Amino acid sequence: MQNNRFLKACRREQVDCTPVWLMRQAGRYMSEYMEIRNKYDFLTMCKTPELAAEVTLQPINRLGVDAAILFADILLPLEGMGIKLSFAKNEGPVIANPVRSQEDVNKISILEAEEATPYVMEAIRLIRKELAGKVPLIGFSGAPFTIASYIIEGGGSRDYKNCKTMMLQSPEIWDALMEKISEVLLRYLKAQIKAGAQAVQMFDSWVGALSPDDYATYVLPYSKYVLDGLKEEGVPVIHFANNASSMLELVTEAGGDVIGIDWRINLDEAWRRIGYDRAIQGNLDPFTLFAPPKLIEEKVKRILEMAGNRPGHIFNLGHGINKDTPVENVIALVEAVHKYSRR
Amino acid sequence: MQNNRFLKACRREQVDCTPVWLMRQAGRYMSEYMEIRNKYDFLTMCKTPELAAEVTLQPINRLGVDAAILFADILLPLEGMGIKLSFAKNEGPVIANPVRSQEDVNKISILEAEEATPYVMEAIRLIRKELAGKVPLIGFSGAPFTIASYIIEGGGSRDYKNCKTMMLQSPEIWDALMEKISEVLLRYLKAQIKAGAQAVQMFDSWVGALSPDDYATYVLPYSKYVLDGLKEEGVPVIHFANNASSMLELVTEAGGDVIGIDWRINLDEAWRRIGYDRAIQGNLDPFTLFAPPKLIEEKVKRILEMAGNRPGHIFNLGHGINKDTPVENVIALVEAVHKYSRR
Repeated sequence: MQNNRFLKACRREQVDCTPVWLMRQAGRYMSEYMEIRNKYDFLTMCKTPELAAEVTLQPINRLGVDAAILFADILLPLEGMGIKLSFAKNEGPVIANPVRSQEDVNKISILEAEEATPYVMEAIRLIRKELAGKVPLIGFSGAPFTIASYIIEGGGSRDYKNCKTMMLQSPEIWDALMEKISEVLLRYLKAQIKAGAQAVQMFDSWVGALSPDDYATYVLPYSKYVLDGLKEEGVPVIHFANNASSMLELVTEAGGDVIGIDWRINLDEAWRRIGYDRAIQGNLDPFTLFAPPKLIEEKVKRILEMAGNRPGHIFNLGHGINKDTPVENVIALVEAVHKYSRR
Repeated sequence: MQNNRFLKACRREQVDCTPVWLMRQAGRYMSEYMEIRNKYDFLTMCKTPELAAEVTLQPINRLGVDAAILFADILLPLEGMGIKLSFAKNEGPVIANPVRSQEDVNKISILEAEEATPYVMEAIRLIRKELAGKVPLIGFSGAPFTIASYIIEGGGSRDYKNCKTMMLQSPEIWDALMEKISEVLLRYLKAQIKAGAQAVQMFDSWVGALSPDDYATYVLPYSKYVLDGLKEEGVPVIHFANNASSMLELVTEAGGDVIGIDWRINLDEAWRRIGYDRAIQGNLDPFTLFAPPKLIEEKVKRILEMAGNRPGHIFNLGHGINKDTPVENVIALVEAVHKYSRR
């Protein structure tokens, strides 16, 4: 490995400067990406290892980030479960057969990930080969709650009404569904590691919709099942729970070597609550990248100061990068992180 | 005043049992409301004092809540500012002339609230008369950030991109806009109190989009201006900041006799961070009302336990009630709060 900063920081080892990567770094804000995206639809890109590899690698040279993250969608494992997924034009994911009953849950299949999503594993092998040790490759999945929310709601949601209703009215159906989802996700992440992912991140994008009590009762055991199951794999695991800053203690209890945080909390306070026996990842508001470069620099310095000189900070945004972000600001961000954290 | 519980709790005085009211209690989940709503569009209802009074009073008898809250929309003051507001069918507010430049800000008028929104003040006078001292009446407004977000985005938003971009790129335009908005809101709330509102709530519905630093720099001074300006009025002021549990200290610093919290944090932890020199309002997830009555009861008990016997807790949801909520569950909730908090 030529650039080992990211993996070292995950293990809370000393690094020459703070590593940085960006959630959704392979994405629409880059013209290189759009050239490909204009030719293929999103699912085709995900399912064609050569295309997935190409866009995964784009930000590595262009931005100078310290890790690559697999280009994929958190919903890819759904098809192997028998759930019909499509992407409506500019509308996000649509699920033709949302899961609402015990019968629906019974129909869900649990396949081996190499069988359900062979193209993901092939993309990982290809990316590792093309990266040739330049930077490490991060694999990822959604977390059980986030995946359940799509499966139950039939797509994105503002209020998670169907999801919460199932949870509260039919906890036995909820549990049966979460058991199946957790098993699928654990197998999916294990297969990614086997294929060559050198770290994995579990995204709980929508868990901020829940109260701490409901998280503890209905979600934490399933997230923990996946995260515990990965311990034996020997690669760092990042657990990112968006909009969950008021229940970081519970998120930490669920597990993860690195806890990813959003921008709604000061990083120093977040790390204190998580505990210094974990690494931390975050936490710039993605829209800071619309600010003048001088202000971006100031905000980078502020986050680095909050992280202090404690080993184990991975710089990232608090959420995915926005499609309208000026790419020169992203480059300035990466440079600023490296420059101002140089030991 | 026949039922004084709510005002007493706002002042942290001893009460016979915990008062309860619900954000958006006059709303679409009630058949009485829908009967009127089916005859008139939303803005007509807001602008006709007799209709606004009628729907304001509906939940008082039906639910047994301890306060009435004025039926109105947080965006009503926009029209007096020269901003064109309409409500698209099932789509929420649309602003025809969003504010994006210094010139746009210059055009904003600051009128007296009796002149800009006479129908609101008339509705308050009518409601007070019809309530005849049964329960107190709460007036309300949006908070400066929330109002700014609509004015800049031109309606609702998922990411507040235009709003954050103005804040970070053109802080002088942002400040000029926030100054005008704060002045309008302060006058609006003062006029409501003069017309008869016995408490007021300032809703910062969307401030959870910000980092604590950005809140402190760009928002807190303006919220504080409004809240400080209300101190001399002698009525309790509730400051509700949605999705802001990771910066409660800053929300508290901005002001309010009562701090309203959402459901994303345990009430005991929230109150500890707010400080016991303030009253607290909250904090049941509105979707708990879709649970079986037995579970609603358990969750009510849990919140009451977290509040302890400390005076100054007002029971409420953590956000507005959902339109599909079964009304019998709402009645069960109000009964449970009174029953299990009886001193």
